[in-house]
Amino acid sequence: MYKVAVIMGSDSDLPVVSDAIKTLKEFGVPVEARVISAHRTPDEAAEFAKSARENGFGVIIAAAGKAAHLGGVLAAYTTLPVIGLPIKSSTMDGLDSLLAIVQMPSGVPVATVAIDGAKNAGLLAVQILAVSDAALADKLAAHKAEMRESVIKKDAKLQDEIAKI
Amino acid sequence: MYKVAVIMGSDSDLPVVSDAIKTLKEFGVPVEARVISAHRTPDEAAEFAKSARENGFGVIIAAAGKAAHLGGVLAAYTTLPVIGLPIKSSTMDGLDSLLAIVQMPSGVPVATVAIDGAKNAGLLAVQILAVSDAALADKLAAHKAEMRESVIKKDAKLQDEIAKI
Amino acid sequence: MYKVAVIMGSDSDLPVVSDAIKTLKEFGVPVEARVISAHRTPDEAAEFAKSARENGFGVIIAAAGKAAHLGGVLAAYTTLPVIGLPIKSSTMDGLDSLLAIVQMPSGVPVATVAIDGAKNAGLLAVQILAVSDAALADKLAAHKAEMRESVIKKDAKLQDEIAKI
Amino acid sequence: MYKVAVIMGSDSDLPVVSDAIKTLKEFGVPVEARVISAHRTPDEAAEFAKSARENGFGVIIAAAGKAAHLGGVLAAYTTLPVIGLPIKSSTMDGLDSLLAIVQMPSGVPVATVAIDGAKNAGLLAVQILAVSDAALADKLAAHKAEMRESVIKKDAKLQDEIAKI
Amino acid sequence: MYKVAVIMGSDSDLPVVSDAIKTLKEFGVPVEARVISAHRTPDEAAEFAKSARENGFGVIIAAAGKAAHLGGVLAAYTTLPVIGLPIKSSTMDGLDSLLAIVQMPSGVPVATVAIDGAKNAGLLAVQILAVSDAALADKLAAHKAEMRESVIKKDAKLQDEIAKI
Amino acid sequence: MYKVAVIMGSDSDLPVVSDAIKTLKEFGVPVEARVISAHRTPDEAAEFAKSARENGFGVIIAAAGKAAHLGGVLAAYTTLPVIGLPIKSSTMDGLDSLLAIVQMPSGVPVATVAIDGAKNAGLLAVQILAVSDAALADKLAAHKAEMRESVIKKDAKLQDEIAKI
Amino acid sequence: MYKVAVIMGSDSDLPVVSDAIKTLKEFGVPVEARVISAHRTPDEAAEFAKSARENGFGVIIAAAGKAAHLGGVLAAYTTLPVIGLPIKSSTMDGLDSLLAIVQMPSGVPVATVAIDGAKNAGLLAVQILAVSDAALADKLAAHKAEMRESVIKKDAKLQDEIAKI
Amino acid sequence: MYKVAVIMGSDSDLPVVSDAIKTLKEFGVPVEARVISAHRTPDEAAEFAKSARENGFGVIIAAAGKAAHLGGVLAAYTTLPVIGLPIKSSTMDGLDSLLAIVQMPSGVPVATVAIDGAKNAGLLAVQILAVSDAALADKLAAHKAEMRESVIKKDAKLQDEIAKI
Repeated sequence: MYKVAVIMGSDSDLPVVSDAIKTLKEFGVPVEARVISAHRTPDEAAEFAKSARENGFGVIIAAAGKAAHLGGVLAAYTTLPVIGLPIKSSTMDGLDSLLAIVQMPSGVPVATVAIDGAKNAGLLAVQILAVSDAALADKLAAHKAEMRESVIKKDAKLQDEIAKI
Repeated sequence: MYKVAVIMGSDSDLPVVSDAIKTLKEFGVPVEARVISAHRTPDEAAEFAKSARENGFGVIIAAAGKAAHLGGVLAAYTTLPVIGLPIKSSTMDGLDSLLAIVQMPSGVPVATVAIDGAKNAGLLAVQILAVSDAALADKLAAHKAEMRESVIKKDAKLQDEIAKI
Repeated sequence: MYKVAVIMGSDSDLPVVSDAIKTLKEFGVPVEARVISAHRTPDEAAEFAKSARENGFGVIIAAAGKAAHLGGVLAAYTTLPVIGLPIKSSTMDGLDSLLAIVQMPSGVPVATVAIDGAKNAGLLAVQILAVSDAALADKLAAHKAEMRESVIKKDAKLQDEIAKI
Repeated sequence: MYKVAVIMGSDSDLPVVSDAIKTLKEFGVPVEARVISAHRTPDEAAEFAKSARENGFGVIIAAAGKAAHLGGVLAAYTTLPVIGLPIKSSTMDGLDSLLAIVQMPSGVPVATVAIDGAKNAGLLAVQILAVSDAALADKLAAHKAEMRESVIKKDAKLQDEIAKI
Repeated sequence: MYKVAVIMGSDSDLPVVSDAIKTLKEFGVPVEARVISAHRTPDEAAEFAKSARENGFGVIIAAAGKAAHLGGVLAAYTTLPVIGLPIKSSTMDGLDSLLAIVQMPSGVPVATVAIDGAKNAGLLAVQILAVSDAALADKLAAHKAEMRESVIKKDAKLQDEIAKI
Repeated sequence: MYKVAVIMGSDSDLPVVSDAIKTLKEFGVPVEARVISAHRTPDEAAEFAKSARENGFGVIIAAAGKAAHLGGVLAAYTTLPVIGLPIKSSTMDGLDSLLAIVQMPSGVPVATVAIDGAKNAGLLAVQILAVSDAALADKLAAHKAEMRESVIKKDAKLQDEIAKI
Repeated sequence: MYKVAVIMGSDSDLPVVSDAIKTLKEFGVPVEARVISAHRTPDEAAEFAKSARENGFGVIIAAAGKAAHLGGVLAAYTTLPVIGLPIKSSTMDGLDSLLAIVQMPSGVPVATVAIDGAKNAGLLAVQILAVSDAALADKLAAHKAEMRESVIKKDAKLQDEIAKI
Repeated sequence: MYKVAVIMGSDSDLPVVSDAIKTLKEFGVPVEARVISAHRTPDEAAEFAKSARENGFGVIIAAAGKAAHLGGVLAAYTTLPVIGLPIKSSTMDGLDSLLAIVQMPSGVPVATVAIDGAKNAGLLAVQILAVSDAALADKLAAHKAEMRESVIKKDAKLQDEIAKI
């Protein structure tokens, strides 16, 4: 199975990003996590992206905040799908990260998920790998069914709480 | 090869969306385009998404403007990767479409590209299919090389224009 | 009397949404509350909306955050008035929810209230039912008079506090 | 049948607002249109709103731009549902109108539709009146079916255009 | 001397607004503070504004949050200068209040100060009264000189703290 | 009577600013207009503001776009009320001008009007002068009455146009 | 004298960027202009930046739009000052470019100028080179004096136009 | 060596600004810090900027919040490069400071760094001085290498933490 790379621009992003890693592990997808900065270790970023496909990766998740260039820099060096995960930082509520990731110019897309949407970044990677992997697609269908069950249970439970209002 | 579905919420989106279709055709990826509205033909949207995988689709591109729910509605009914393409409408400069597409809640990702970024929506779909398709990956590498050549030529040509400033 | 449905996309919205339920109860309007997710239980959402009128509902309140599609999805399946209540989430200060709810395309309106404006969502539902219900209209008039009295009392009380500044 | 009032803050809003009036007429709903300014004719606004219910109105639509206070001012004087229609003006792309209308404080809701969303303002008024008017509800259902047919036709027609891309 | 009215839309605004009152008192300007809501006590708002000039007021300060209509409503009924003070509320960081106050349509200005800028609202009122009041103008000049002295002292004090960095 | 100064940061602002001058002339208020740039002629700005009161000015209107510092710079050197008029420029739709003018720090207010709201800047200056000038106050009252009449005429005229919709 | 590099991400940026080149030429600063894309020719970008200092450059101007990574990518590979020039594109009015350039993470600054502020990018480069170049500093002083004269002339000329209003 | 001036509009900015001072000290660059307000001590600001070059300064850093005019005011009086550091204040998340600093009109640039980006303000000043100072350029290269090492170490350390997820 293809591996998924989870690259974060700073180790301070880990508390948010860990949900992506957890999700990938839950689906049994092999994951490698790295701290690589587009601005502080640009050669490492280029090197990683250039050789990602031949190193067995199928998808790259790039998490970064503020003027978040990591996704775009990696996408410049690979034809693998790159998922951009905007991290909310101390100012601008994540809007800067979101725009810096999603507004990529023509020719080099970055598949952007919600601000701090780490679980969805992981799920999207699984969905991409599942296009040609029936077993993984089955797991996704099961996960979707579980989510549905969970909401239905919460709906049932809600009725007790409503009575108290 | 898997097909790519290009769904637009309104036929008025076609002038923008056609770049996605053109890109897919250039890569030899089979594409089906549809007008399906999350709000005016919700049953058709649900129906399409539910059966998309078994109907041979590998990726769905959903283009919509304003309170753009199409991507999320399709993603609710399928485990295929759904690419959200925010369309700029007459007010709010596309920010409404972007946020309505990208800020998906946990569990149901939509892979969002730039506002009016139709070509990138098409390219991202190709990248996703190319994960497990070496021939398609080669075409992407060739496309990347061509983009590079194109920029290098423009760089050369620029020198003449600069002299006149 | 027609019932009002209060649908929330997640049970975590209840602390905000409960003000809508409380308001409806205070006006003696029968209310049913549900957790139904546009993205995790889309079939339940469609089912609920399709049969809402025949099930005795007069108005639907839909509370959701982030890429808040719930109101639009319900409105796609019913001709009842749908009130959209944007919930502020951890990023973007509710602007994403607001735009994703209010910017509905032509043909399928969602009556949007303020971000986290749960009490107003409830009041608006009462106002809608009161159009053809004189007793309810009288209660609204009494409520308006009470609000006025409350402000006048606070105005009187203010004079003491001002003296200390 | 209850009448719907369509109040605009300036006669320059008519080109946008006329879609609301047209929609109401198409549904056979009696409509009265007025130019009343919250800031230039505040007494007329107060007078209109105070007597609207007894004058046979069921819903008020208030269209205004910039610091759009009209909806809130009318809602201050009536318990009828007030629909706020934000008009895009020459600056701020309608965001000022939207926020000035939708962010109403607790106790006095304004049911807000999309920026320049005049047709939806009209439809929402019809939906409100149709809560207790079965014939009007049937017309709404027919309108919904027509919208669906229209999209399905456009979908069919799209296939020809796609072939040319 | 003319009095200054400080009107707040809600008594919960007092902690912010009190700086305006304090500033007016420091300059010896007679001040009356009131809780009057544009939406909950609109008749009181109209009444106050209509008779403000003949009641000896020279300036009105109107403090309100969210869809802040108070300043515009008062300005609709008086030709006195109205100062709008936008209050930051729990969402939107005060941008809604600011736009709802400052973007007044042609013919009815509201003199807007910074979000939560209560002291400046008070100072602006003093400046307006001081146009034709030489003694008050002298006090403003003295206040300006004191502000200058205060900054110069802080500048001197800074040098010690810098040494520790 | 006190004069009003209308200062613009660039002569390219004149097409917008001229409405302020026209309004002042209509009220018979003596006006002097100047091009003074906070950034290109800062000494002239300081000089003008420092001597404005003794030169017979009662109010200063400062019109500027982008990082609009003119109002704040003038206010730094005078205790006269300074009205800030944000000019919309080629980017950012005037939001930059608005925030750069209205968000003044404590101690130095600038009375801000709407983006491109030149007429209101003029009217606000008249209102300020009218605080202690009964004749001017009467003119303002007459102007308010005319505005009311104008809206009432437009309301009457609207009825013909509505019939055609 | 050090050279200034003017790098643009796309040749379509030239109409805006040419003002930077013109300004540099007017000051007699040697300039080299290039089309280098952070995303399409990343190796060329890295190569250029790595060798810029030894190739005689003193400052790099990087102009780019949308998710504008060019400035940050160049700054990652050089310790020369990099000036970021945000280009307004077809959506988002340049806010995306601005945030993607200015919000650089700690350690790798990009000196950002106004959206489409090409002349200022050129002037800033001259100012940087003039820190240690007295002749260039004299030219800047002369330019500042000329700007002042130009405003003073426009101020004089304004008086004629004002008379006509 | 040229000195760097670090000017802050208020001593309350010191906790943020101190990182700029610290960075300059670490590079051995002589620094002078001052509290000078564009609005409360405008003469001091003008005086400082006018004589800054002859007093041995090479770069000026100007830190301010809200309607942050300090950078522009200093730049109006000097041809030295002025670095603008936007400070986040209690409202608007720093967007007001950013726009008020970066959107400078043509002719008077301010080199803007990220909101609260004090370290980068310091680094940018060092980069500017290093253009013509080889020893300082070497220190910057060393700093860049250290940053790279630091990221590489964090990358290594991450592997342990990942195992626990």
